[in-house]
Amino acid sequence: MSVLVAGSMALDTIETAEDRVEDAVGGSASFAMIGASFFAPVSLVGVVGEDFPEVHLNFFRSRRIDLAGLQRLPGKTFRWSGKYLPGFVARETLCTELNVAEHYQPKVPAAFRDPAVLFLANDHPRLQTAVLDQAGRPGYVICDTMNLWINIAREPLEALLRRVNLLMLNDEEARLFTGQESLLRAAHELLGRGLKAVIIKKGEHGAFYLDREQMFLAPAYPLETVKDPTGAGDTYAGALAGALAKAGSVHRASLRSAMLYAAVLAGFTVEAFSFDRLKRASEGEVEERVRALREMVSLD
Amino acid sequence: MSVLVAGSMALDTIETAEDRVEDAVGGSASFAMIGASFFAPVSLVGVVGEDFPEVHLNFFRSRRIDLAGLQRLPGKTFRWSGKYLPGFVARETLCTELNVAEHYQPKVPAAFRDPAVLFLANDHPRLQTAVLDQAGRPGYVICDTMNLWINIAREPLEALLRRVNLLMLNDEEARLFTGQESLLRAAHELLGRGLKAVIIKKGEHGAFYLDREQMFLAPAYPLETVKDPTGAGDTYAGALAGALAKAGSVHRASLRSAMLYAAVLAGFTVEAFSFDRLKRASEGEVEERVRALREMVSLD
Repeated sequence: MSVLVAGSMALDTIETAEDRVEDAVGGSASFAMIGASFFAPVSLVGVVGEDFPEVHLNFFRSRRIDLAGLQRLPGKTFRWSGKYLPGFVARETLCTELNVAEHYQPKVPAAFRDPAVLFLANDHPRLQTAVLDQAGRPGYVICDTMNLWINIAREPLEALLRRVNLLMLNDEEARLFTGQESLLRAAHELLGRGLKAVIIKKGEHGAFYLDREQMFLAPAYPLETVKDPTGAGDTYAGALAGALAKAGSVHRASLRSAMLYAAVLAGFTVEAFSFDRLKRASEGEVEERVRALREMVSLD
Repeated sequence: MSVLVAGSMALDTIETAEDRVEDAVGGSASFAMIGASFFAPVSLVGVVGEDFPEVHLNFFRSRRIDLAGLQRLPGKTFRWSGKYLPGFVARETLCTELNVAEHYQPKVPAAFRDPAVLFLANDHPRLQTAVLDQAGRPGYVICDTMNLWINIAREPLEALLRRVNLLMLNDEEARLFTGQESLLRAAHELLGRGLKAVIIKKGEHGAFYLDREQMFLAPAYPLETVKDPTGAGDTYAGALAGALAKAGSVHRASLRSAMLYAAVLAGFTVEAFSFDRLKRASEGEVEERVRALREMVSLD
């Protein structure tokens, strides 16, 4: 039961109130595929430039990630730099260089078609649609997006959303997309526009899932230390995709369990820059945190 | 199994982005005792002035609330006025007139002593301590507070906290009290100072409970409409006190169940000014929302 992840591969420069890191591995697909790799074999469709360090690619390979759909194009890798305000109350994008991502055309290898779960990680809706068009018949399609695409590519995004099983977006993006202040209203409005299901992520406050039959209020994993939230949402979505692929079907219990695993893995991402902590998380640590989180939300 | 509530009785003038109300019934004790009255007989220790409308007192009486500990003093009732920023992202206090509350000395009637649960609703720690001193041997003591007392009466507040079973405060107050940005750290630090248990309330994001044995992540009841959050925290705490009194003992399952009931009743408070919606909530509506909320957090 494999997961196909498509999205951006980046080198990030990130400033927090306490620290700074340059050219850290980032991008929506990087975080997502590591999150997914805890649960299932993963294949990637994406692009990097000539400068993307081989050591990171080897790390991805070491995690059962098939890079046959990764293009290495002449030029520089997509770069993003951002700055967090103290207390991580807001994030400012300082600079975005598309570089090789600008004229990139995704190609899905034949062997990657018909995945159990297809995760269209945050990227231009045009690229997400191109991947979906080539992906055969995925068992379940999850799509993430961000404020930039809601602002500049709303039409292709809305067309894409009619073809996916689940949209993930954060609280701010949900408000921007719908004009609704109440997240519950925003979620209902998205379903009213024909979307099948939505997860609205609220960072340290958890997330909630809504479809026509159920609503699930999912916790975040409580942390004492927040080092860098970059990639937490991508990790969350990737882990969710992986856990659903492992479960073999998407139903009420598998979905709710997958959202606990997703919260735990996103927590590891937040505890360090890039995926420095996530990559050291053992299966035992993941299971232990999920067990603790179950205890924290259990009503018995 | 009765609840003794002590705290402020006020007339509030409140401005939101969309509306305004003058001289609405408010005060920490008012909301708390209505919340508690859904579950248990309630008695009140508090003070009002000559201007406090009799119609409200009759409403309290109609809800099994014993007002024998309510003093009516010459002068005006305590008045508070505040203004919410759009989206309820922050609240500004415009004016506070202590009036009869300034020189008030609480007196606990003999019949009110040894309650199953004593709730010291938000008020000056000096007054809260005076009530505790006269309350005999309460089965369980819950204390609420606010940023004002943390700033100007920290010493009596800290002395009081060593004598209670549970402190309730909101996220902002927890950070102010401890200097910790992480709410989990803040909660641990409060326990480290000798407090037995704490609930940190996060408004629409729910609340969490921490003691030395367990942590519980409790949901808020999701709402489409937010009209006025004033009193939601007081309702939450009062409902919790009432539900625990009804359960007859405080243990893991009764506590967790009580926090769901508290979330539902606080939700009713938020849906209208004052307790206009809360007071119309039927037992059937409360049970229906609690049932729905259980579904929304269940892992099965």
